[in-house]
Parts: sequence; C-alpha cells; structure tokens
Amino acid sequence: MQAEIVAIGTELLLGQTIDTNSAWIGEQLAELGVTLRRKTVISDRVDDVRAALDAVLPDTKWVLITGGLGPTKDDLTKNVLNDYFGGTLEFHPDVYAHIEAMFARMGRVPGPLNRGQAELPNVCEPLANAKGTAPGMLFQRDGVRYVSMPGVPYEMKHLLEAHVLPRMRAESDAHIEHRFFMVQGIPESELALRISEWESALPDGLSLAYLPSPGIVKLRLTARTQSSDEATALLEPAAQGLRAVLGTDIYSEDWKTIEEVVGERLTAAGQTVATAESCTGGSIAALLTRVPGSSRYVLGGIVAYANDVKMRNLGVNEADLLLHGAVSEPVVRAMARGARKRFGADWGVASSGVAGPDGGSAEKPVGTVWLAVSGPGVEWAGRFQMGDNRERTVRKSVLEVLNRLRGFLPEAPVKY
Amino acid sequence: MQAEIVAIGTELLLGQTIDTNSAWIGEQLAELGVTLRRKTVISDRVDDVRAALDAVLPDTKWVLITGGLGPTKDDLTKNVLNDYFGGTLEFHPDVYAHIEAMFARMGRVPGPLNRGQAELPNVCEPLANAKGTAPGMLFQRDGVRYVSMPGVPYEMKHLLEAHVLPRMRAESDAHIEHRFFMVQGIPESELALRISEWESALPDGLSLAYLPSPGIVKLRLTARTQSSDEATALLEPAAQGLRAVLGTDIYSEDWKTIEEVVGERLTAAGQTVATAESCTGGSIAALLTRVPGSSRYVLGGIVAYANDVKMRNLGVNEADLLLHGAVSEPVVRAMARGARKRFGADWGVASSGVAGPDGGSAEKPVGTVWLAVSGPGVEWAGRFQMGDNRERTVRKSVLEVLNRLRGFLPEAPVKY
Repeated sequence: MQAEIVAIGTELLLGQTIDTNSAWIGEQLAELGVTLRRKTVISDRVDDVRAALDAVLPDTKWVLITGGLGPTKDDLTKNVLNDYFGGTLEFHPDVYAHIEAMFARMGRVPGPLNRGQAELPNVCEPLANAKGTAPGMLFQRDGVRYVSMPGVPYEMKHLLEAHVLPRMRAESDAHIEHRFFMVQGIPESELALRISEWESALPDGLSLAYLPSPGIVKLRLTARTQSSDEATALLEPAAQGLRAVLGTDIYSEDWKTIEEVVGERLTAAGQTVATAESCTGGSIAALLTRVPGSSRYVLGGIVAYANDVKMRNLGVNEADLLLHGAVSEPVVRAMARGARKRFGADWGVASSGVAGPDGGSAEKPVGTVWLAVSGPGVEWAGRFQMGDNRERTVRKSVLEVLNRLRGFLPEAPVKY
Repeated sequence: MQAEIVAIGTELLLGQTIDTNSAWIGEQLAELGVTLRRKTVISDRVDDVRAALDAVLPDTKWVLITGGLGPTKDDLTKNVLNDYFGGTLEFHPDVYAHIEAMFARMGRVPGPLNRGQAELPNVCEPLANAKGTAPGMLFQRDGVRYVSMPGVPYEMKHLLEAHVLPRMRAESDAHIEHRFFMVQGIPESELALRISEWESALPDGLSLAYLPSPGIVKLRLTARTQSSDEATALLEPAAQGLRAVLGTDIYSEDWKTIEEVVGERLTAAGQTVATAESCTGGSIAALLTRVPGSSRYVLGGIVAYANDVKMRNLGVNEADLLLHGAVSEPVVRAMARGARKRFGADWGVASSGVAGPDGGSAEKPVGTVWLAVSGPGVEWAGRFQMGDNRERTVRKSVLEVLNRLRGFLPEAPVKY
C-alpha cells in the first residue's frame, strides 16, 4: 500500500518551522508496512494546493495532508479541498459543541473565526479532533483517500492514530510485526559495529532499522510475514541473539523512555529519588516528572548553579570546590549524597559539567560532565565528554545518569 | 526568482532522519527574496528522481537537489543526473587529489568507492566541496539551474554558501524584509481577532503570517519591495500600529525566546533569579539555563514535588497547605518568596498545579496551575487553566511565569 504526504505551510518553506510531523508519520507508516513514496511541501496558495492534489502518483491510496486548518485567513486548506471535491460548506452543531467545550475548559468563549471551523464540506467525512478545534476531514475519490489534518503536531498525531492508522492496519495485506530495543549512550556507528555479525546473519523476512536521536538509538527489528506465528518464529531467536550481544545495554524492549523505565522500577521497589543538578539545570528533574504519577517517587531536587548553593544546600565542602573545582568527582558525589540526605530519598542523582559554549579549559574542555548516583549501599560517579553543543550535552547527561540509576534498580515485574 | 528543493533519501521518508536541511535552505532563500515554491522528498529510486526532475514547475529557476551523493550503492543521484542530462562520466584528477588529502588528514587512504566520487558528468560544472569528498554539481538546461549537493548538513551548507547563494544574490531583483513580533499566552484565534482591524488595513506589499507553537505565536510581517528604503517606509508605520494594539504583549521584536529576553533583562539589571517548582518539575530552571551564560543570573532552584519539601525548603506554612492545598495562591506565593530568600536572589518564580492526568478535582481540575513571581517591592500570583495535556501544561506554565517575570524587568538597552 502506498501513501504520500502533502504538507501545507509557508512557514515550512521559509524555514521558520522544522517539519517534524513527516518524520513521525513516516515512522508510523513504516511500522504498518505502508510505503511512503513521496512528500511534497507547498505554501498556503490555492494553486499550489490544487496542483499538489492533481499530481498524486498513480499507485497512491492515501494522501495525508497536513496544515492550513487554523482559524485565520492564511489557512485555506478547507476551502480548497471543498472546491476541489465539489462540495459546499455545512455547519455541524456537534463539531461546534466540541469547540465550545474546548474553550469552556479554558474559561473562554469561541469567537466568530472558531465558529467557521465548525463548517465542513458536505462531501467529506469529519474526523473528530479531541485535541483541538479543527476537525480532520476524509475525502474519497477513485479509491484514493485524502485526509486533511491540522499541522499542530499533537493534533495531527491524535487524528492519525484515532482515524487513519486503524483503517490502514485493517486494509494492509502483509503481516508486519516489530520488536524494539532501546539503547542509550552508544553512538550509532559503534552500535552498528558491535551488532554487525548478528545483523548480517538475520534471516530473510527480518529487517533492522536504526532510529537515532540524541543519546538514544532505537533498534527496530521488523518481521514481514504471512502470519503472527511465522513472525514470532523469526523474531524470537533474533531477539535472543541481540540480547546476548548487548545485555543490559538494552534499557527497554518497549517503546519506552528511560524516565518511564526508571519510574516503573522505583514504583515497584517502593523507592524514591531526589536530584542535585548543576550543568543540567533542572532537566533531570523535569524529565523524571514528565511521567504521569511521578509524584509517587520524585521527592524533589536542587538546581545548584552557584557554588554557594552547592555548599549551603547540598553540603558540598568548600575545600573540595577550591581544590578540585565544581566540575569534579568529589563535588558531584557530594551533590548526589546531599540530595539524598536533604530530601530523605532512597536515591540521589547529580550532575556537574561545562555545558559551554564558555567556561572550558585545557583540563576540562567544554562538554566535560561529571555524573553521580548515590543510593542504599551503592555510589557511582563517572566522567564524560559530551561534545560542544550545549543542548545535546544537557540531554545526553540527563539520559546517561538516569540510565545509570536504572542499572542499580531491580527490574520491575511485568504486569499482566 | 523561484526555487524548488528535491531532497533524495529513503531515510527521510522512513522517519529515521528529520530533514533540517530544508528549513535552513528556506531561511537563506527567504532572506534573499527567493521564493521557495515547493519541496519534494523522494526515496533513492531512479524512477522517482527522474519523475521529480520532470515535474519541476514552469517558473522555477533553481532546483536544489540534496542527498544521494555518498560512495555507497544506494546513492544514485550522480548517475541519474548524468543520464538525465545526457553526459558521460569523466575522471577529475583535481577532485581526486582533494579526496586523497581529506583521507590523509584522518590517516587513511581512499578506497575504490571513493575513487568513483572523482568521476563527474562532463555536462556539469563541478562545485568544490571543502568539507567532504563528494563535490557538488551544477547542471543547466533552458535557463534552469540544477544544483546537486550532499545531504550531510554541514557539507550542504558549505556548498550552498560558497557556490549558490552568491549567484542568487547577484541575480535577485526583489527586496524582502521581515519584522518579527513574539507573543506569549494568547491563542492564535484570539490574537487574530485582536489585530484583525490592523491586519485588514495592511497596505499592498506587506503580508502577515502567524507561526504558532505551544504557548507562543510568532507574527511575521514581510515587505516585498524594490529597495530597502521602500521596505522601511512600509514596515515602520505597520510595526507602530501593531505595537499600539498589542503593547507589552509583544515580548520581543527579535526572533528570540522568552528565556533569552529574561536573561538579557536580568543581565542588564545586574539581577538574579531562583525557582521553586512543583508541577513544572524543574522545567522553569531547565529553560532558563538553556541560555549560554545563564550562570550569571540563575542562582539555583528547588523542585518541590512533595509537600514536606515545600515546607522544609521553601518555608511554606503547614496551615496553608492544609487549609488551601498545595495548588493555591498562598502556597505558590510562599514558594516564590521562599526561593528568593533561600538562594538570596532578587527574583523568585514559582509554580504549583495539577499537571494530570490524575489528581484533578471539581474545584481544581486537571490543568489548574498557580504561578507566582516575587521580587523587589513586587509580588504577583495568578491562576490558569492550561488544558488536559501534561506536557503542554508544563510548557505553557513555564512560558507564562517567565513572561510575567519579563514584565517586571526593565527593558534591556539595545546594544550597538
């Protein structure tokens, strides 16, 4: 089955917004075995939208259209589609009720522009948008489905997941099954070398994809077979082989984040954590608390940017600061212990580093980071070189220290 | 002048790589007044590359082709272009000497695949690539230029800057100038209503675009004229008019983030800030410290998830917690004051809310957030309803409280 994306938005062409939607859609389609053959990005111009619709490839069954559904004047997708498919706009009271409810939750009342969002072409199937005011629209012509979705990522994701992917799944002929292996802290090229022997021995019907993001590589092992049994027969031995090579470097075999795995393990163990952050500036705590329910195991944290704060709040010795500097093993260890003690937590995690761009020295160049974990009967600290990009240094440090913490926590029992 | 991008790479369609090249190219072209009319992403398939070349729009003068120039077999752009433009491959000793020199710098010798990179179509102008082994190629046909560049971002940027942008600049006729207005905390539709009168009165030659992201709308006002003077004559009164309508709701007229503006103002005032975070879990501190040099004005912060932590670390009264709950005005005010006092900072900012998905009540539903700012002679607190998405509630709360802090800080003097 073949699909195409038509992304509408002048801001995408002017370079003011990086299109992350398409990569996400590409991933979802790849998982279903749907071939994304082409993606076309055009601006909010009537002629260009029409031309893109005219140019849909012969074998395409799904055209995924994103963007241009906002309430303002430069959002013209709906009207163009209405004309293109020869419809007229109809007011949908149920859609308007939803818009009103969404505004009410924010203590607001919809304006006239929002009322217009409840007018939809009579030739489309409206797709309910629980996450926003603009409904999706599904048009059909000659066996091709045209889906129009807002460009806002979480609204687009919701619409695709709720209305499009299930239909594609139902129509797909091949049986596609995936296994995921989440690996932190090993660069893609190094990982590829480590598993190259295993990878070359993969049987027909299995394929491997590397999905790298800063600090994490997701390995996706895909079986394309006729049945679920066949898929399992291929996937199981391959998964065993990969586990044998990578061991605990696989932090999860689910599409899970490190903070979710840490949260599960802390919850299962009935334990708590506190943070002491210098170079990561609150990002460890922020990532831990992104997980719903994290208030059960995150007690609190200290962002200790200034040395003074490290001493007074975390019990770091002035002597250590003077002798070794803030970015040092004794200081980061003291910070982790200090966080544990101050908050009465089972575990303390800490960071201290030179995020850059300034502040580097020959001995401690930009990107030097010390990380530590302190817990019941165990303490660990390590020095890392995270490169010269401030944001990536923070991100990689956060993932690294949480993955170290994970390594000290017993595996959470699988829930049935 | 009109351009198009053709991006070649199966990894772009499978969602394994987010295409940041196109956004960068779009920005460069927009600055030159070159219209990027369309971008097409296709996979490494001969037919698809040829079809994309056949489909170039009538008015396009520049076709920017990225990707598919690596040494491996799935990189087929060069051969397809060679066939398409009817050339034959010729060995270029100077290109090969450059490849050898690049390898020598890494202590290596090029292999046979790399020797092939020195073979170029005799119908193209080779574009020297100082950053990599694959040279760029410039083809011409019927007044249209086709530029082929590697997909590696820093190589593509180098080739575009060295060989393409200078030629475009020399040929460009229109003058394009932008003004940006950054607005926080007003939804796009409400903003559109507030400025609709101003917007409808915009003269010819000016256009407005809304570029929304969670919590922030960027307004871009564009003048397309013959000269810089004409652009200024159009932009200045329009900018004045917009300022009159929106006042200090415009937090910046640069392409700046709120945390950057807050940082500039704190630096200019020689003041410092500390954070006390409950529902935002460290994200206020994390955002503040994303700015390089923020150690000058961020002293530290407390992540106070547990009530106990709020009392012991921030001096919140137990009576207030019992009477009003953690998500309440007296508690969030006490937190902001507590942060200020504990860290000896000029300013304290605080958050306490129900990020969800659990923990809501009829009185304080999910999305209820109290925010506070405490500073020299001033204190502010406000209650907000941020919706039912945990991540967005955090993001919007962080932006809101930082924008409130901005409002209390004197504007930083403009640097010349």
